[in-house]
Amino acid sequence: MSKTKVGIINVTGYAGVELARLLYQHPEVELASVTGRSAAGQRLGEVFPHLASLDLTIKAELSDVDLVFSAMPHRESAKEVIPFLNRGTRVVDISADFRLKDTAEYWHWYGFTHPAPQLLEQAVYGLTELYRSQVTYAQLVANPGCYPTGAILALAPVVKTGLIEPDIIIDSKSGVSGAGRTLTAQTHYSEANEDATAYALDGHRHLPEIIQELKLLSPEQLPSVTFVPHLIPMTRGILTTGYAPLASGTISIDKKGEEELRQLYRDFYKDEPFVKVVDFSPHTKHTQGNNLCLIHPTIDYRTGNLIVISCIDNLVKGAAGQAIQNMNLMLGLPEATGLQALSIYP
Amino acid sequence: MSKTKVGIINVTGYAGVELARLLYQHPEVELASVTGRSAAGQRLGEVFPHLASLDLTIKAELSDVDLVFSAMPHRESAKEVIPFLNRGTRVVDISADFRLKDTAEYWHWYGFTHPAPQLLEQAVYGLTELYRSQVTYAQLVANPGCYPTGAILALAPVVKTGLIEPDIIIDSKSGVSGAGRTLTAQTHYSEANEDATAYALDGHRHLPEIIQELKLLSPEQLPSVTFVPHLIPMTRGILTTGYAPLASGTISIDKKGEEELRQLYRDFYKDEPFVKVVDFSPHTKHTQGNNLCLIHPTIDYRTGNLIVISCIDNLVKGAAGQAIQNMNLMLGLPEATGLQALSIYP
Amino acid sequence: MSKTKVGIINVTGYAGVELARLLYQHPEVELASVTGRSAAGQRLGEVFPHLASLDLTIKAELSDVDLVFSAMPHRESAKEVIPFLNRGTRVVDISADFRLKDTAEYWHWYGFTHPAPQLLEQAVYGLTELYRSQVTYAQLVANPGCYPTGAILALAPVVKTGLIEPDIIIDSKSGVSGAGRTLTAQTHYSEANEDATAYALDGHRHLPEIIQELKLLSPEQLPSVTFVPHLIPMTRGILTTGYAPLASGTISIDKKGEEELRQLYRDFYKDEPFVKVVDFSPHTKHTQGNNLCLIHPTIDYRTGNLIVISCIDNLVKGAAGQAIQNMNLMLGLPEATGLQALSIYP
Amino acid sequence: MSKTKVGIINVTGYAGVELARLLYQHPEVELASVTGRSAAGQRLGEVFPHLASLDLTIKAELSDVDLVFSAMPHRESAKEVIPFLNRGTRVVDISADFRLKDTAEYWHWYGFTHPAPQLLEQAVYGLTELYRSQVTYAQLVANPGCYPTGAILALAPVVKTGLIEPDIIIDSKSGVSGAGRTLTAQTHYSEANEDATAYALDGHRHLPEIIQELKLLSPEQLPSVTFVPHLIPMTRGILTTGYAPLASGTISIDKKGEEELRQLYRDFYKDEPFVKVVDFSPHTKHTQGNNLCLIHPTIDYRTGNLIVISCIDNLVKGAAGQAIQNMNLMLGLPEATGLQALSIYP
Repeated sequence: MSKTKVGIINVTGYAGVELARLLYQHPEVELASVTGRSAAGQRLGEVFPHLASLDLTIKAELSDVDLVFSAMPHRESAKEVIPFLNRGTRVVDISADFRLKDTAEYWHWYGFTHPAPQLLEQAVYGLTELYRSQVTYAQLVANPGCYPTGAILALAPVVKTGLIEPDIIIDSKSGVSGAGRTLTAQTHYSEANEDATAYALDGHRHLPEIIQELKLLSPEQLPSVTFVPHLIPMTRGILTTGYAPLASGTISIDKKGEEELRQLYRDFYKDEPFVKVVDFSPHTKHTQGNNLCLIHPTIDYRTGNLIVISCIDNLVKGAAGQAIQNMNLMLGLPEATGLQALSIYP
Repeated sequence: MSKTKVGIINVTGYAGVELARLLYQHPEVELASVTGRSAAGQRLGEVFPHLASLDLTIKAELSDVDLVFSAMPHRESAKEVIPFLNRGTRVVDISADFRLKDTAEYWHWYGFTHPAPQLLEQAVYGLTELYRSQVTYAQLVANPGCYPTGAILALAPVVKTGLIEPDIIIDSKSGVSGAGRTLTAQTHYSEANEDATAYALDGHRHLPEIIQELKLLSPEQLPSVTFVPHLIPMTRGILTTGYAPLASGTISIDKKGEEELRQLYRDFYKDEPFVKVVDFSPHTKHTQGNNLCLIHPTIDYRTGNLIVISCIDNLVKGAAGQAIQNMNLMLGLPEATGLQALSIYP
Repeated sequence: MSKTKVGIINVTGYAGVELARLLYQHPEVELASVTGRSAAGQRLGEVFPHLASLDLTIKAELSDVDLVFSAMPHRESAKEVIPFLNRGTRVVDISADFRLKDTAEYWHWYGFTHPAPQLLEQAVYGLTELYRSQVTYAQLVANPGCYPTGAILALAPVVKTGLIEPDIIIDSKSGVSGAGRTLTAQTHYSEANEDATAYALDGHRHLPEIIQELKLLSPEQLPSVTFVPHLIPMTRGILTTGYAPLASGTISIDKKGEEELRQLYRDFYKDEPFVKVVDFSPHTKHTQGNNLCLIHPTIDYRTGNLIVISCIDNLVKGAAGQAIQNMNLMLGLPEATGLQALSIYP
Repeated sequence: MSKTKVGIINVTGYAGVELARLLYQHPEVELASVTGRSAAGQRLGEVFPHLASLDLTIKAELSDVDLVFSAMPHRESAKEVIPFLNRGTRVVDISADFRLKDTAEYWHWYGFTHPAPQLLEQAVYGLTELYRSQVTYAQLVANPGCYPTGAILALAPVVKTGLIEPDIIIDSKSGVSGAGRTLTAQTHYSEANEDATAYALDGHRHLPEIIQELKLLSPEQLPSVTFVPHLIPMTRGILTTGYAPLASGTISIDKKGEEELRQLYRDFYKDEPFVKVVDFSPHTKHTQGNNLCLIHPTIDYRTGNLIVISCIDNLVKGAAGQAIQNMNLMLGLPEATGLQALSIYP
């Protein structure tokens, strides 16, 4: 039986490259076409030697495929995917264009009038664990941002069950690849190495995405979220530490409550192939190169706060891996197909 | 005029080594004697080639000096410094032994009956900016922990002025040298490199120190502090992100309030040689190798939370540099003597 | 059809762990049993969370399997594998025990009388590209060291064809995981990070292995090899730079000669699944996590020297990957089975 | 007595920044003026927060100073310094413009007709240890490249004494700051981190500089030098490994010969404040942030090759530190003034 053909618009960013890497080992789909403006005409393996086995040429236009991944920057991505959607091709959009349901919010955070507001209603937010059934039948999936993936998965069980007060602090530490392949002073090796810094203190674009989803999980309470992303000197990985007061009366502030809390998380993510609730403080290295999200919820007995840690690889569960997880559902394949490689350790 | 002679008990840990490095460039004191159990009898430069210029032999016992730094582990440190105190020698203790005023807390966190409770009253907590005058006349200074230094300096201005509600989250990211020179799996290169992790989720020993000091700054309100330290892949530096709700009615939640807030910090640390309130998100690299603490307070306009960032070099302002800052005061020298080197950048 | 069962003696070192990771994604074999002295009785996933999916318990003794990998240290490995060999089980030994054919050399470099000299004759040196047919029928394969793998593959084409004078310099730069999982001062994070150093200047144990194999490739000339390994601050990867004078009259010292040289390498490694001769200076990152060896031979026109660069992942082609490549041949499977994942990039 | 005023043309590269850092702690000179095209008009501390204490504004033109450092790129540097030289101001040029005595070589390697050939004769190559007396009286010093500094110091004693055959291999491993502050794909964090690569295999611009100086040391033999620079994932430091056959009959290939060799090096660098001949394999970390060059010469008993290792900080002894060392001589100050800080370790 011939494999399903898929394509990548803008393969030349890190999300695009990671999609190509993961799709190469996918047994049921074939990466048949890739585009990339600046590199059009070059062999994929010339630009990215580690992808030489894929035997593809970067084109200016995508050839005919059954499903399209767009790894274009926001605004341009929406424009690029419209023709494919019109033709009935299914699309997983890795850009931010279809994540926010509110065009005013999009305008506020991205500085543009939304280029295709008519598509927002049908677009499904592709945090697979929360939208599995909608993803399955979606024509357009908005693949979540890397920070929202780690943050929402860490908080969903307690937000949904009302176990926490809505005063949430999200402190995320990201590897530098999250900033992309574009050269910047911030990501120059000698600047980023041996350095830690907080950024986007006046608001990061992933914040409205986190708020939108936490609000949907908790329709009665408006969550108040302070989110601070940090850049730390490693290539891959996001460790998110979430803090919130446990709602009084919901759970006991002791070892027993903590066990209940952990059981609640385990039940919430029961049978999830890629979310693991763990009993130890997880390491980003435990997810390096694979699609896992490790979550460790715990109680600060002294203050009654929830402390919850999550770890993902920002380029896999935070981007390309989750995109393939969504693709698997859209194509009727087992969700974990092609995503079962263990993390590279050490 | 001959220089004041000082000595280091247990020069062989990272705090001891850093003391030696900094004292070498101190114009008014002479590092005259160093001890180190396992390395006794060896030349300092044999064990630490970068210290060869110091021309010292590691001894089993300290020779006669005017001031002693103890870089022994806790419990042993208290025992070691007693004879010097009895002789009237002044001591800066870098261990945790004299930081906590409450012996029950010491027992709880360190697992031992305090070895010298009679000395606690006279011991001055050596966070120089808060205890300058006491340090000046102290015979025994308890040099603060690295995390408490960054955290307390970041929060003192708002705690003291009641500008925040007492629900404080402290999320710290530390370089690996903070874990010391003792070999552990956690600090094995291949494990710590390209990895981020939270640790001590059930309570870190620096927490009671932070609480003790914040409480003293804010006698009316019992601060509730959740503190989570993280290990990130760099050698030096601690970036601390502090979060707390601004007390309603104290400051406006807008740009103007933020400017007032920053001015409050500037006033609080006016004329401090080593605390700089900055208008940008600071980098640990800006403090690499020197004694600065950079602080950047800001307001999350959406939630009304204070977000405050501080950066220090854990081995300098977080240990050896602050010890020398204290020593300068104790010896009647200008506080910044020997500590004015700029940070190594990049 | 049921999968072939394999086992790992001493899974708890980095080579053992990497074997487990790679075998998990192997479609034709099942990792059925693992041992590890200190960790016996524990779940594999408890000690190595990234291996939790393997669902194995670390045992003191290996259960019955069809093929055994030994990742024991030298000397002990030989003793451990004897009972398996006596039973007719096939063995891939990752230790150094069966690499050197000369027991005097073994004694000289390892400081022990060889524990099983009777097995040396039948042991096949498992540098797959050079010993493919012998590996296929071997009962005992001595998996090469990491440095020899990169160095011999880089030099074999020119040594075998007599294209170089036998005065060879091999300068290798290795990531820290090559030093293993045992804690040492050299591999303590704060020491190894931001540092480069040469080591084993009086002779590294991989030198006799390199000499033995280069001699066998070039029976007429005794190669003179200077080999200096260096430790550089990264986890995985070995970059080897080989230098030797081109033999006069064999090849022209110009662009044309360089093209001939490169063609010679391409012919030598024609159809090799894991050795790629490339036209650019390769990066270790291009091999991160996979079994490739990238080779770039070039001529220094000014001096007439060959400069040849090779890159491998020390834990894959330099250890576990090559062991599986050998296993595939021994089991009659296509050589690249289970080893086709692309490198993790960036 | 007022301090000597010095200025930096183009303070905004890493060499310029490092000059500023080191000059700040110099007791006898005052950094009075700095320029930088793109940043002209900004406060130095705005662009480089770690230099805030310098209290300088970046200007378009240098004000009147007693000595000028030029940290401009080559070609432009020559043009910039001419007016200062004409005015009689002394200049230390950190660019490559005045290093090569042969304008044809300059044209070949830099691709331009030399902009000021008339100055070449008076320019003194500022490898201080070799040209101390000329530097002292020079009006124009050509500060050496980073690689040549480490390589020439490592080889000078044996080249000058004819102890080696002239077939020299120089294999250098450099931290990424050597590539400068300009953004490039090669120095993008995610690309350079966890990676090692060789570059400039067809000839690096520092090669003619190395050859020129080794030739001058050894007028009878034309040295044949193969030089391969490598980029490794750290910010600072160059480790150079030099290889050459020991000339037969000059020294015995054994422990005794090695001791003689080391003594020869010790004698050669006797009383040098910044070159240390060491008995162990040195680490770049031992020179981090300071002006030392550590050298470890050794003999490969098996092959009769010299192996010599040198370590420097590429931004200090390899650039700004050596420039200040030269300045000290030019100003009649003790050579080590302001350069005595110990290396930052760990």
